Amino acid sequence: MAETLTTKLLKTHQAGGSLTPGEDVQLRMDQVLLEDATGTMACLQFETLGLDRVRVPFAIQYVDHNVLQIDSKNQDDHHYLQSVCAHYGLIYSPPGNGISHYLHLERFAHPGQLLVGADSHTTMAGAIGMLAIGAGGLDVALCLSGQPFNVPAPRVIGVELRGKLSPWVQAKDIVLEILRRRSVRGGVGSIFEFFGEGVATLNVTQRGTICNMIMETGATTGVFPSDEQTRAWMSAQHRASQWLPLAADSGASYDEVEVIDLSSLEPLIAKPSSPDKVVPVREVAGLAVGQVCVGSSVNSGYEDLALVGAVLHEKVVNPHLVMTVTPGSRQIEDRLIRSGTYLDLVQAGARMLEPVCGPCAGFGQAPGSGVVSVRTFNRNFPGRSGTDHDQVYLASPATAVATALRGVITDPRDLGTEPPLPPAPAPDVSVDDKHFLYPLAPAEAAQVKVFHGPNILPPPPQTPLTQQLVGRVLIVVGDDISTGDLAPEGVAIFDLYSNVKAMAFFVFRRLDPQFAARAREWGGGFIVGGQNYGQGSSREHAVLAPKFLGVLAVIAKSFARIHRRNLIAQGLVPLTFANEADYDRVRLGDQWEFVELHGVLERGEGECRARIAGSGEELRLRTSFTPWERQVLLAGGLLAYTRASEKVNR
Amino acid sequence: MAETLTTKLLKTHQAGGSLTPGEDVQLRMDQVLLEDATGTMACLQFETLGLDRVRVPFAIQYVDHNVLQIDSKNQDDHHYLQSVCAHYGLIYSPPGNGISHYLHLERFAHPGQLLVGADSHTTMAGAIGMLAIGAGGLDVALCLSGQPFNVPAPRVIGVELRGKLSPWVQAKDIVLEILRRRSVRGGVGSIFEFFGEGVATLNVTQRGTICNMIMETGATTGVFPSDEQTRAWMSAQHRASQWLPLAADSGASYDEVEVIDLSSLEPLIAKPSSPDKVVPVREVAGLAVGQVCVGSSVNSGYEDLALVGAVLHEKVVNPHLVMTVTPGSRQIEDRLIRSGTYLDLVQAGARMLEPVCGPCAGFGQAPGSGVVSVRTFNRNFPGRSGTDHDQVYLASPATAVATALRGVITDPRDLGTEPPLPPAPAPDVSVDDKHFLYPLAPAEAAQVKVFHGPNILPPPPQTPLTQQLVGRVLIVVGDDISTGDLAPEGVAIFDLYSNVKAMAFFVFRRLDPQFAARAREWGGGFIVGGQNYGQGSSREHAVLAPKFLGVLAVIAKSFARIHRRNLIAQGLVPLTFANEADYDRVRLGDQWEFVELHGVLERGEGECRARIAGSGEELRLRTSFTPWERQVLLAGGLLAYTRASEKVNR
Repeated sequence: MAETLTTKLLKTHQAGGSLTPGEDVQLRMDQVLLEDATGTMACLQFETLGLDRVRVPFAIQYVDHNVLQIDSKNQDDHHYLQSVCAHYGLIYSPPGNGISHYLHLERFAHPGQLLVGADSHTTMAGAIGMLAIGAGGLDVALCLSGQPFNVPAPRVIGVELRGKLSPWVQAKDIVLEILRRRSVRGGVGSIFEFFGEGVATLNVTQRGTICNMIMETGATTGVFPSDEQTRAWMSAQHRASQWLPLAADSGASYDEVEVIDLSSLEPLIAKPSSPDKVVPVREVAGLAVGQVCVGSSVNSGYEDLALVGAVLHEKVVNPHLVMTVTPGSRQIEDRLIRSGTYLDLVQAGARMLEPVCGPCAGFGQAPGSGVVSVRTFNRNFPGRSGTDHDQVYLASPATAVATALRGVITDPRDLGTEPPLPPAPAPDVSVDDKHFLYPLAPAEAAQVKVFHGPNILPPPPQTPLTQQLVGRVLIVVGDDISTGDLAPEGVAIFDLYSNVKAMAFFVFRRLDPQFAARAREWGGGFIVGGQNYGQGSSREHAVLAPKFLGVLAVIAKSFARIHRRNLIAQGLVPLTFANEADYDRVRLGDQWEFVELHGVLERGEGECRARIAGSGEELRLRTSFTPWERQVLLAGGLLAYTRASEKVNR
Repeated sequence: MAETLTTKLLKTHQAGGSLTPGEDVQLRMDQVLLEDATGTMACLQFETLGLDRVRVPFAIQYVDHNVLQIDSKNQDDHHYLQSVCAHYGLIYSPPGNGISHYLHLERFAHPGQLLVGADSHTTMAGAIGMLAIGAGGLDVALCLSGQPFNVPAPRVIGVELRGKLSPWVQAKDIVLEILRRRSVRGGVGSIFEFFGEGVATLNVTQRGTICNMIMETGATTGVFPSDEQTRAWMSAQHRASQWLPLAADSGASYDEVEVIDLSSLEPLIAKPSSPDKVVPVREVAGLAVGQVCVGSSVNSGYEDLALVGAVLHEKVVNPHLVMTVTPGSRQIEDRLIRSGTYLDLVQAGARMLEPVCGPCAGFGQAPGSGVVSVRTFNRNFPGRSGTDHDQVYLASPATAVATALRGVITDPRDLGTEPPLPPAPAPDVSVDDKHFLYPLAPAEAAQVKVFHGPNILPPPPQTPLTQQLVGRVLIVVGDDISTGDLAPEGVAIFDLYSNVKAMAFFVFRRLDPQFAARAREWGGGFIVGGQNYGQGSSREHAVLAPKFLGVLAVIAKSFARIHRRNLIAQGLVPLTFANEADYDRVRLGDQWEFVELHGVLERGEGECRARIAGSGEELRLRTSFTPWERQVLLAGGLLAYTRASEKVNR
């Protein structure tokens, strides 16, 4: 039978389970990616497994997030991670080397292989025919130990690309179009697989933009075929021998198909404060802008920035706004310097930032109060920029640079003819791996002592699920709560990501500053949410911090995939309303009693009840878990489950 | 009579007072420099004067400090300053344009003129024969209003430079030698004037390094003659017509002379945590280093970084440390790109930061706990890096890059022959002023509304000195307390520099975290300090914040110049012990009563007494003030005095 590329990749890596959508499948991972914001906690959990070395063919730790270093904690974290890498055999990529997703695409992503990463935008590596999935830190830690990755088998949505993009319309506009059509929930449980004649018109940088940001639909990942464009990319990276052709079989059928006519797209923009609030740029054109930021793990590629430089050549950024530009990697920075683009940007007045995540994840460049900021990033959740009530728009580099010139949101087509790019320097002169630190030989590695800085605390313990869960409703929140609402962005908070106790104070800081105090005062309890609870980043701190405050379970209308799995991995029960209308009956402070949940999980039943104390009322809640998930929850979390089941042979 | 250059510059600008050292002289200022950390408060105070436009020939506001923008406050401050500039007629230099002192030297500093700046390192402009003095924000605000600058007339210390520097020995080593000889107090009340055959061997970048960091001796400023080196610099900056020759008369006599034989100097380094703990590099060579930072307002010039790039050419920074490089200005960055140095640095693995103050003033790149950091900066006061108990060494770019290569503190002479620099691009291709925003015509300026962000509070009020000062001793501190101890560095604290109420919480944070709470609880009182109280930065927040907490006076063994003047400007009385041994009698919590201070100031007497309540004891304190200072103190501060004496004609 004709198979999709996704099915082929899943089948060749299936270590157990089922490929029926919604059931668990166990996947053998070829590669593991870590970054520093989530990586310290992943490594701390890996350390508790007692192994002497990672047991996965390839593992890499990038440092790209917490690198502003406003106090000693960041560099302490870096030293911890560097020592973990040296001791356990991971590659270490130091701060300033580049953004994990770009570096990985350049140097390590591999067509036909599977990658799991402790970062939601790990999906970017799908650009070269790799199945690349973001996950929580503990999931990733277990993959480091050689265990397969457990994930609900996805539906496959085929995206047929027809025609080719018009001038000034970019890959960003393709993924914005998908978000416009499907919203931030429209990809949950699915992989987007691209096919059709339009695919060949897109280079790997463009595909990377799409695969990175496709995650914002809630998708498990996105994947492109590996073709001549892929071969060209791999060759330029001195990796031609790692290339292989990959595509869906002719006639393969998808669970669903989206058709996008590239030639009919126009420049799009996502309005504040959700990546799916997408409208044509012309609808908001003319709005005064105080900041333009180009770069991040999307749209910081050479071609992206070469266009920006070409537009700004011998021009000056509008004096009423500030523009920042962040190259994606040292290699890209190198090429930009050689091509003259870097100088064009400097001369135009752009603030050139080093190749790190930077403002995309709230590490600096927070806009002023009330300031409209146009960014080429992947997310604009409320406050993610570091500014409360921020006004962040997401758009392509073309739209961003047009806006930077004019000072108001501008459709780039208004600039006239797209300028020619400067002659590209041969990429291969910029390619090298000399700044990665490669694993030491085991004997030498064993001598390296792991450095635990004063802010680096052990991960919280996991204890078996109690027979009864009793507690109060600590908060009732709406739809599309992001992990940034739970574990907020902000330089001073990210600083505490190796110290759950300290960062727990900030849970729901923006929505309800009293939450943490109330949770402690009430002795813990429950969070009640709406649709798509826990969207966004993979950070497991969005579970660890509420858990520290005593949260026992989260009851929502629906969950985002990674966050739901993170709840389970830490032993917090994610429940959904059997009747969504019950959401409206929930009152802050209600005391809920789950007396049968333990038994329901043991028996694998689909529903349980919660008594609302003092009211005589009950709620019916769905307990839709795979058998593996039930075992993990009963054990109290994935680490406890793993230890109990002796999955790891020391 | 043969005159020193200093005397000539003072005489041509004298608007009143006396040139007898220690007496007040009033100086007509040609130029005023502001930066954003101290500038918002200076501008807020200027606004209270009610003028419609600045009344000084040249005024510029640089934004170079608070530019990490971890939340909305920084950009709000920038918008405030940009609107102040547009409304009142100052030049505005936006974030990313460069570090104030480098930009000023390049584009605006003027031989023969006088500059006052709200930044202690304003002294850097002395490199081209300008008398450039740092001052508190309120002093500078009054200069903006056209008033002369009041300063104690300085002694003049002649520094005779003989011979020339050996390979690998740099200008930084000259100023470190001066600090080694004279300590951080050895320049108080003095101007260092350079002369002798060695002067001609130093270019303007080198002179800038010396004049910038000479401030660390407590000096009023430093000044070089204007000669052929100066002419070459001015020509390269397209400012040949502004050049004029300036030097001391032959046979001029100095109050004191230091002789430095340049050829006998070797690489020097200041150990933690004071710029005067200077030893030869070889004495500490071999110490493991975790961070090397090149740049800041000293040692971020083209020649500085060209050498660093040449040493790193086709080499890689030691993997056990992280290196950052900060160019001093956009012009320097531009030249580095054109010469190939920028690419050398990127390829070597240096983290290239944008041209802003950055880590020098604690804006990012805080070292890990216990990490030795070697920096080319001008200060290493405890905690200034952002890390408590930091281990910061100050050295030349040559020593820094040798250390970056080897991973341990390294005498650069150990690297062998100094490498040739790449052919320098003609500087003039990099010279332009297109990113400065120039004053608008008055009619247009009047239309610009000044933007006060939500964090921008009016300056605190000034009320006349009360008849009696009664309060408790709130803290007793030791020698060389810096303004960073009083108004700490740190990104999250600098964020609050437009909001004294919020930042007051952090006074003495490192030395005594309970200070702020105690001061409020005890209803205010007195600070007791040792020698050189208030050294370092010019930030008047080091006065405003204690004042907010109720501090009425500071009693010390001696004061740093700018801080002493800032105390007076805000109506806090700086007193010294008549008998220094009395310092040892002071006890925390003692209640002191100054019943005769008001009268002593009115009558201009030299001493007053404080009764120690309950003990029957008394302390004798020196009230050494110039007549003008006494009037300001009685009025309650310089703003109140100015208003009362109607110095400003609206």
